[in-house]
Amino acid sequence: MSRIGLWLVGARGGVASTVLTGLAALSQGKTRPIGLTTELPLFAGLDMAAWADFVAGGHEIRTIRLADAAMDLATRSRALDPDLVEQVRPELDAIDHRIRPGALHRVGSTIAALADPGVPRDDSPRDSIARLRQDIEDFAASEQLAHVVVVNVASTEPAVDPSRLPATWDELEPTLDDEACPLPASSLYAIAALESGCSYVNFTPSLGSLPEAIDQLARRQKSRHMGRDGKTGETLMKSVLAPLFAHRHLEVMSWVGHNIFGNLDARVLADPANKKAKVASKDHLLREILGYAPQTLVSMESIESLGDWKTAWDHIHFRGFLGTPMTLQFTWQGCDSLLAAPLVLDLARLTDAARRRGEVGTLHFLASFFKSPQGVAQQEFIRQFEMLEAWVKGRKT
Amino acid sequence: MSRIGLWLVGARGGVASTVLTGLAALSQGKTRPIGLTTELPLFAGLDMAAWADFVAGGHEIRTIRLADAAMDLATRSRALDPDLVEQVRPELDAIDHRIRPGALHRVGSTIAALADPGVPRDDSPRDSIARLRQDIEDFAASEQLAHVVVVNVASTEPAVDPSRLPATWDELEPTLDDEACPLPASSLYAIAALESGCSYVNFTPSLGSLPEAIDQLARRQKSRHMGRDGKTGETLMKSVLAPLFAHRHLEVMSWVGHNIFGNLDARVLADPANKKAKVASKDHLLREILGYAPQTLVSMESIESLGDWKTAWDHIHFRGFLGTPMTLQFTWQGCDSLLAAPLVLDLARLTDAARRRGEVGTLHFLASFFKSPQGVAQQEFIRQFEMLEAWVKGRKT
Amino acid sequence: MSRIGLWLVGARGGVASTVLTGLAALSQGKTRPIGLTTELPLFAGLDMAAWADFVAGGHEIRTIRLADAAMDLATRSRALDPDLVEQVRPELDAIDHRIRPGALHRVGSTIAALADPGVPRDDSPRDSIARLRQDIEDFAASEQLAHVVVVNVASTEPAVDPSRLPATWDELEPTLDDEACPLPASSLYAIAALESGCSYVNFTPSLGSLPEAIDQLARRQKSRHMGRDGKTGETLMKSVLAPLFAHRHLEVMSWVGHNIFGNLDARVLADPANKKAKVASKDHLLREILGYAPQTLVSMESIESLGDWKTAWDHIHFRGFLGTPMTLQFTWQGCDSLLAAPLVLDLARLTDAARRRGEVGTLHFLASFFKSPQGVAQQEFIRQFEMLEAWVKGRKT
Amino acid sequence: MSRIGLWLVGARGGVASTVLTGLAALSQGKTRPIGLTTELPLFAGLDMAAWADFVAGGHEIRTIRLADAAMDLATRSRALDPDLVEQVRPELDAIDHRIRPGALHRVGSTIAALADPGVPRDDSPRDSIARLRQDIEDFAASEQLAHVVVVNVASTEPAVDPSRLPATWDELEPTLDDEACPLPASSLYAIAALESGCSYVNFTPSLGSLPEAIDQLARRQKSRHMGRDGKTGETLMKSVLAPLFAHRHLEVMSWVGHNIFGNLDARVLADPANKKAKVASKDHLLREILGYAPQTLVSMESIESLGDWKTAWDHIHFRGFLGTPMTLQFTWQGCDSLLAAPLVLDLARLTDAARRRGEVGTLHFLASFFKSPQGVAQQEFIRQFEMLEAWVKGRKT
Repeated sequence: MSRIGLWLVGARGGVASTVLTGLAALSQGKTRPIGLTTELPLFAGLDMAAWADFVAGGHEIRTIRLADAAMDLATRSRALDPDLVEQVRPELDAIDHRIRPGALHRVGSTIAALADPGVPRDDSPRDSIARLRQDIEDFAASEQLAHVVVVNVASTEPAVDPSRLPATWDELEPTLDDEACPLPASSLYAIAALESGCSYVNFTPSLGSLPEAIDQLARRQKSRHMGRDGKTGETLMKSVLAPLFAHRHLEVMSWVGHNIFGNLDARVLADPANKKAKVASKDHLLREILGYAPQTLVSMESIESLGDWKTAWDHIHFRGFLGTPMTLQFTWQGCDSLLAAPLVLDLARLTDAARRRGEVGTLHFLASFFKSPQGVAQQEFIRQFEMLEAWVKGRKT
Repeated sequence: MSRIGLWLVGARGGVASTVLTGLAALSQGKTRPIGLTTELPLFAGLDMAAWADFVAGGHEIRTIRLADAAMDLATRSRALDPDLVEQVRPELDAIDHRIRPGALHRVGSTIAALADPGVPRDDSPRDSIARLRQDIEDFAASEQLAHVVVVNVASTEPAVDPSRLPATWDELEPTLDDEACPLPASSLYAIAALESGCSYVNFTPSLGSLPEAIDQLARRQKSRHMGRDGKTGETLMKSVLAPLFAHRHLEVMSWVGHNIFGNLDARVLADPANKKAKVASKDHLLREILGYAPQTLVSMESIESLGDWKTAWDHIHFRGFLGTPMTLQFTWQGCDSLLAAPLVLDLARLTDAARRRGEVGTLHFLASFFKSPQGVAQQEFIRQFEMLEAWVKGRKT
Repeated sequence: MSRIGLWLVGARGGVASTVLTGLAALSQGKTRPIGLTTELPLFAGLDMAAWADFVAGGHEIRTIRLADAAMDLATRSRALDPDLVEQVRPELDAIDHRIRPGALHRVGSTIAALADPGVPRDDSPRDSIARLRQDIEDFAASEQLAHVVVVNVASTEPAVDPSRLPATWDELEPTLDDEACPLPASSLYAIAALESGCSYVNFTPSLGSLPEAIDQLARRQKSRHMGRDGKTGETLMKSVLAPLFAHRHLEVMSWVGHNIFGNLDARVLADPANKKAKVASKDHLLREILGYAPQTLVSMESIESLGDWKTAWDHIHFRGFLGTPMTLQFTWQGCDSLLAAPLVLDLARLTDAARRRGEVGTLHFLASFFKSPQGVAQQEFIRQFEMLEAWVKGRKT
Repeated sequence: MSRIGLWLVGARGGVASTVLTGLAALSQGKTRPIGLTTELPLFAGLDMAAWADFVAGGHEIRTIRLADAAMDLATRSRALDPDLVEQVRPELDAIDHRIRPGALHRVGSTIAALADPGVPRDDSPRDSIARLRQDIEDFAASEQLAHVVVVNVASTEPAVDPSRLPATWDELEPTLDDEACPLPASSLYAIAALESGCSYVNFTPSLGSLPEAIDQLARRQKSRHMGRDGKTGETLMKSVLAPLFAHRHLEVMSWVGHNIFGNLDARVLADPANKKAKVASKDHLLREILGYAPQTLVSMESIESLGDWKTAWDHIHFRGFLGTPMTLQFTWQGCDSLLAAPLVLDLARLTDAARRRGEVGTLHFLASFFKSPQGVAQQEFIRQFEMLEAWVKGRKT
């Protein structure tokens, strides 16, 4: 039975520590597989890795201990069960030894300020890629892995306009020596992964593998990738509710969404440069699903007392028959990291399953997992899920 | 150009008066077609009636004036625009003259108490059917109609167990003379309509055309029918949101829904016999979509001050990854009659369009309009809507 | 330094186990005194017991272990910190040994069904009082207590109409031999406490010490008592918000309150007989504060997944200037037992402080703690709190 | 019977047009006095003007018609009854003739951009005061008024720090010729009113009569004034709810308030300079009532579809007993102008009543009407209301 690597970028953050706590718990049968799409009956016959097949490592710019990060989610946020964290502490400690220093290219000053002094800051993009790649390849070799899936779960970088970038890999590659190269760390990780023949998944709104040139690299390397920005809470709700208004021909006049939460991601998003990338990713679906642009507002504010609990309040003001205004409001109270973590595991599993079938390039069938699915125009959640169903049914033996 | 009859059962209720106000406004171009599914681009090429083609009449057990019912929605509930009601008053007054006394078989004591003394109470089911049929046929003849669609928008009758009924029309038909015949008024209207070759649509949770024997009658008469219970608010939300939990494998532990509103329907539903039928219709989808039965609670309470405004508060308690409980709450504030009315118009139009293609029997493609779609197991709104899309695309020239 | 007894009726319930966990934590300085009114600066100079002065015991009809009840609140409901419960386990185990079997007179079949077979069921009221009194007096003697405050935190009994009872103690006392004596257990505990010279506080909507005859007993015994029904959540909100509408002359048309929770109290309140008493206690203040009776609705439903978390959704529909309807909605998400417990501790402390000043009879100054304060017409929370302030200021040296 | 002038600054805004519609309706007995504090039984014996005694005029910088402004509230916002507006149209048209051009000193560029070209822009403060004063005195003379109460209901000006101003009138007065004089229009209106012996009430967060030097002027002129910022919705809720947390010793960790609305005030508050003054006024009470500073967030966003309907969503995260976090959320849906208007009428009436008793200077007893009551530290609504009660009881014959 082959072992599969799960290499997390941002390996000691809230999402990663939850992913890794969960992975240990699943491997040891200590939890029911709630929240995992790939555990639905639909996937029963699919050739995919078992949870116990996965070996984890990653990049990180901070020096906390993984078990402490998980325990903080248990005690400060009441998100994880402290008992469970205690039980998997040995596994988390073991993973800590497989975590290497990350990269800081164009992550913005707020993220850079969080980094350990030992994280390299002055390397050229090319040098960083080489270092990151070596880390991943060392991991694969020492752990004797059949394949490695790299998943970016680091904090959101400031937005980069992909249209400013060269359209082909042959044009982009030479710019890696240039100090002015606009590629942020998320893209350097993507290039490192793809050059090594690993798969890359971007769970954040950062640029990652979005550029056309990097997709070209993936296809050239016969590897695969997908992104961007895991669809976990408020935006998931938008992609479920907006079709209701669209298909019933109810006119959405305004859609206001206020998000409050208190984890590290919230503090990073307090920086307007980082926030802009996130808001764009949360906001575009409405006009794409509705076919017109209602007035929208998306706020994200760091409220420390909430810890990992993200509360979203959405107010949807719509016009019904004969023009009468009506209102739908919802309040979503979920743990940010616990909503994200099972998606990361599902994505790792499905990306590896795609590899088993020899698929390369952009994995469109994973659209339902993302706020801004690369290469996919469909934004309705159920229709995206049908893409996944079709893929499973069309391919499984 | 052919004229189509729209015959409403419960023709002076809140839904009917809104339907008729809206139909007049649409015919005269006095309103934008918000809330009407058949006005989406999808339906552009479909052979269907224009709003101005419709002529309305109906059955009713009360003696208020239609324009007064509409104006009450404008002034007491602030649901309709009083100016618009004033503008269409002549049309509403004209329709008043085409409304005939309804039937009271097994409607329950609460509904019966609302009826005008002149409404026949002691006729046999067979005699009532004959009378109702004559009313509809007179309407068709005097108005020179190509077809009549009968839509039941009357208050909810007490529940009748369809399994108690004979399975074939040939067995059911002889029981119509029997005083013990369990068929409620909604089924008598259905039989009257179908025997006349009209179409029948049941917009309520009442029995209507649900019995297998009545479907047999429809097919024998080469007519068509569909039901039950228009999906307008809280249950529409359930059929949109439950798939989210199902496909993300999030475990719904409990789903509580409290509905408060203050119109006549609310007062009828204060009767436990009538309420039971409604609650059953609002409650079954969750377990059908989820595949298991969370604890559910559906309350409907008459709060007079709300008038036609129905406020639903739903509290969904679900378990996420690693068993952590999370919560989604929503508040839906909509006008009951204004949410229902455009669906009634869409159903009339689409039922007639099905006739134009020679379709008979149960019209499964209309499932997305109903809380308990007859003959359809699929309860997810988007997949039901895809049935409608397929029908439109498959059939239009 | 004198030791004070805290004798809890319902000593292993959710409220009691939280009170006792909290008392141990406070005595040992393991928690900040959040939620305790008597820890406000206002009370700084008052002659009152320290938390470490209290010794606890009680009556109970079930046989679970106190520490298990507390741990259930920690693990199933995520209400208490499991670590803290573990730390105070020895204290809880010690208290377990001071808990005696309670009484079952007229507690209703739902509560009776929860009782251990060993709890006496056929004693006369008089015999029960004698037994309960002996338990309390044994506790006082063996623990060398200066005073005992008995607090009823058991589940709600079915309502008893106090006007059916004799108005004087001399008339009521002889009926205690009578099988038809309508006094429920809560009143027998009250009589037992007061006859022993202990204080009695009724934290539930049960009858307790409400009857005029029992107040007479208290004054005769130079003891003191107060009740009924701790004001912890939704009703506390009503007593805070209704004055806003009253003083701004805004017309409350309807006030709907839905409560969902999943602890033992919720299951007891699923019995209509028990629920009726609770609803009455939650409902009366609105008309007393407003001076008129808006339409009200109070529902309480047992939703198992919520455990000790009580969620209240209130919808207040009011008319503003020129008659325009407006809406206030609130959602209160609190732990039932954790909201109640500090009030129980405050009441024990303040009742004992009243004893130190020689006060007897009904303790009106405690009104702010109760939904239905005995002998007090004032229902506005802030004005009730001012009664407490005046008492503290008027009395302290 | 003496006639009293009500001179509104911002006389064609949403609040003013509602005040004037309401005043006409009240004078003619066309509406019940809902929302008017002075119509409570408490005020029955007070020497105060009848509604029909009031004559209205005002200053305004725009040139719409008053009746059109009122009708816009009826049709676009569904806030007023269109029938009622129609009925009082003659009164509104008459008032239109008594409205004079306002002033634009330091109102900020957003407000200035709304002004009619004919409004003077280059006058010195002193010249403006002279002009405004002449307008008010002409009004008093031509309408034969016993007294005029000037109420500022114009949009919020950018904040001015009062500590930058001279502390005495004798020092402030000479600066009025100076171009650098920092007094905004709201203060010029105050000075004009007070110099004429009129009363001045500041219903906005603008500077108005706050400066110590202007209070000195009022006392010197034997006139009276009060402010600032009418307490109508979310902040009113804060001043009612925060005492609950304070007196129960529950620890508020964070209080987030999001306000969305779509009237002209909302558009003015989209300007950060103007918004800052408003947020400060909405935010300070929490720490004053609680005695510590929880994390707070106050947002106000212009959502056009809402018109005059202001929806506030507040999320209060607090710690209960043993440190357990709990949550209170509320949603307030009210019409901004209809909540403000009755307070303006009450304030005019009570300010005139104070004059009848010879009171001069700052009217502290009006604190309950304001978010930031001048000269009053008490921020709890009920205790502020008790100040009003005491004033009424202490003074009435």
